[in-house]
Amino acid sequence: MSKVGITRAHTNIALIKYWGKRNNELFLPMNSSLSLTLDAFYTETKVTLDDSLDRDYFILDNQEQSLEETQKITKFLNLFRKETQLTTYARVESHNHVPTAAGLASSASAFAALAGAMNQATGLNLSHQELSTYARRGSGSATRSIFGGFVEWTMGYGDDSASSYAIPVDPADWNIGMLVIAVNKQKKKVSSRIGMKRTVETSPFYPAWVESAKTDLVDLKQAIHARDFIRLGEITESNGMKMHGTMLGAVPPISYWEPDSVKAIQKVKDIRDMGIPCYVTMDAGPNVKVLCRQSDMATIHKLLLNDFKADQLISSTVGSGITNLTEADWLR
Amino acid sequence: MSKVGITRAHTNIALIKYWGKRNNELFLPMNSSLSLTLDAFYTETKVTLDDSLDRDYFILDNQEQSLEETQKITKFLNLFRKETQLTTYARVESHNHVPTAAGLASSASAFAALAGAMNQATGLNLSHQELSTYARRGSGSATRSIFGGFVEWTMGYGDDSASSYAIPVDPADWNIGMLVIAVNKQKKKVSSRIGMKRTVETSPFYPAWVESAKTDLVDLKQAIHARDFIRLGEITESNGMKMHGTMLGAVPPISYWEPDSVKAIQKVKDIRDMGIPCYVTMDAGPNVKVLCRQSDMATIHKLLLNDFKADQLISSTVGSGITNLTEADWLR
Repeated sequence: MSKVGITRAHTNIALIKYWGKRNNELFLPMNSSLSLTLDAFYTETKVTLDDSLDRDYFILDNQEQSLEETQKITKFLNLFRKETQLTTYARVESHNHVPTAAGLASSASAFAALAGAMNQATGLNLSHQELSTYARRGSGSATRSIFGGFVEWTMGYGDDSASSYAIPVDPADWNIGMLVIAVNKQKKKVSSRIGMKRTVETSPFYPAWVESAKTDLVDLKQAIHARDFIRLGEITESNGMKMHGTMLGAVPPISYWEPDSVKAIQKVKDIRDMGIPCYVTMDAGPNVKVLCRQSDMATIHKLLLNDFKADQLISSTVGSGITNLTEADWLR
Repeated sequence: MSKVGITRAHTNIALIKYWGKRNNELFLPMNSSLSLTLDAFYTETKVTLDDSLDRDYFILDNQEQSLEETQKITKFLNLFRKETQLTTYARVESHNHVPTAAGLASSASAFAALAGAMNQATGLNLSHQELSTYARRGSGSATRSIFGGFVEWTMGYGDDSASSYAIPVDPADWNIGMLVIAVNKQKKKVSSRIGMKRTVETSPFYPAWVESAKTDLVDLKQAIHARDFIRLGEITESNGMKMHGTMLGAVPPISYWEPDSVKAIQKVKDIRDMGIPCYVTMDAGPNVKVLCRQSDMATIHKLLLNDFKADQLISSTVGSGITNLTEADWLR
């Protein structure tokens, strides 16, 4: 007997950042965050629950993954098995659709797609809200990839896993776009997990960061509801820089910036000074994401080509939430 | 009748940073700071008080300065005139000795030298401690350039100008050096004065910065007294990054980093990973200063030549405090 689930999930970029857990085991965050789901980056995942399997298997982009990598997947699948009392092993096949080799694959789309496919395969039939709490257990940011448009991940309370889930805020269907400037890493950096932990434990700025993120979230949601793009951009840029400032306060300090990250930030400011509203945000890596009006994306792209190569620039419109696919979609 | 004073003062680089005033008029800082005086960068200034002058004149590097520039000098000289009830105008001649054109001239050495020369010309005969409170009124960091080696600028209390002065902490005669990596600016940045003010008023991290700088100062002085170079370097790098983190928290965010600043930070870390202890600190500009053992300076200089041009790299030993010069020294 075998049961199958196939799901597509898009990645998302936080405008109000998530940086630090209050519960490391349950991936419960220190503050609520808010993101924009992107159309250009997504993961498609097929889960086959098959009684004839002797263990879980994980095949990413047609490459069978190591036992170590597979164990991370097993740990995640066990959340569903525990709930359904299923003991069947799974074959997990995944494809990352990323229009460049610049390392933009995201654990957000990966765990959202896996959660969706497992929900389908097990027949658990969880609501999107419930499903987002499962996705969260794989990677915090995956919580938000269950929905499209602007999505809030509400922090919840205490150690209550069910209280920390995603909420669709707005479809972002009012001329919103995002352009990613892919910056090569010079060397391996501190992982998000380690970086967050060190920041929470050692940065004297951390409590103020958490308080400030709460205020920024309220202000950003107001800007979204008022469709005030300038305000949306200003809060996004400010909140992202604050997160990076909080990291510089860690001991020893953490910075994910590369020389080209600074160049990209400067170029975006130059373009803004020309009268085109666009704002940067950065995550735990050197890439620079540019929030802009969808109608300005082509112009901004063209201007950035003066300083960056074509394959470093990826324009994206707003992405949708998870979609269940058929076998026919998968084989296509 | 004319009276003359001639003084040399070296610049200094803060290891525990000064960033923000509690009294803008009196240049009273929000926290105590601690610096290293550098031998390689200095200003020599001659003040001639001359009854025949119709106003103050300011000649910098043989160029007569504008009335606007001269007014800043007049405002500073008036502090001394008020104290001595002198009304004589002054001719101020100044030479910045900076081994590159990379814009490393410093208001710290400038106002320390001017204070020293005016002290001599007026015959006020202030102690170094008193003199440092005068230098402070020209530029906060000038307070520390009155002394050589490691120098603390104690914040003082309330609005009491006399309580906020420089204290020589240690001659730094235990194999200490500093190497400056000069990074070109792409464009004009936010001035220190404006940057400080915006940070104090808008950064949610500012109160934690002030508290943290107090702790860092205590720890740094312990490291100096123990002659623990590694600890000295670690605290220096951490404190400097915290200051830049605090600025990223300002609204809108402030960053003085250029792409080459990040490259320099990365290269210094690479050299440290090779086993040579060296640590970065940065101020309100893109240049990167490297605190190292004097005996490692030549090796570090050579390694940095792989990525930077010779005229971008300036090695400095520890500088002395202000020195009064003779007419013969001046003409030499």
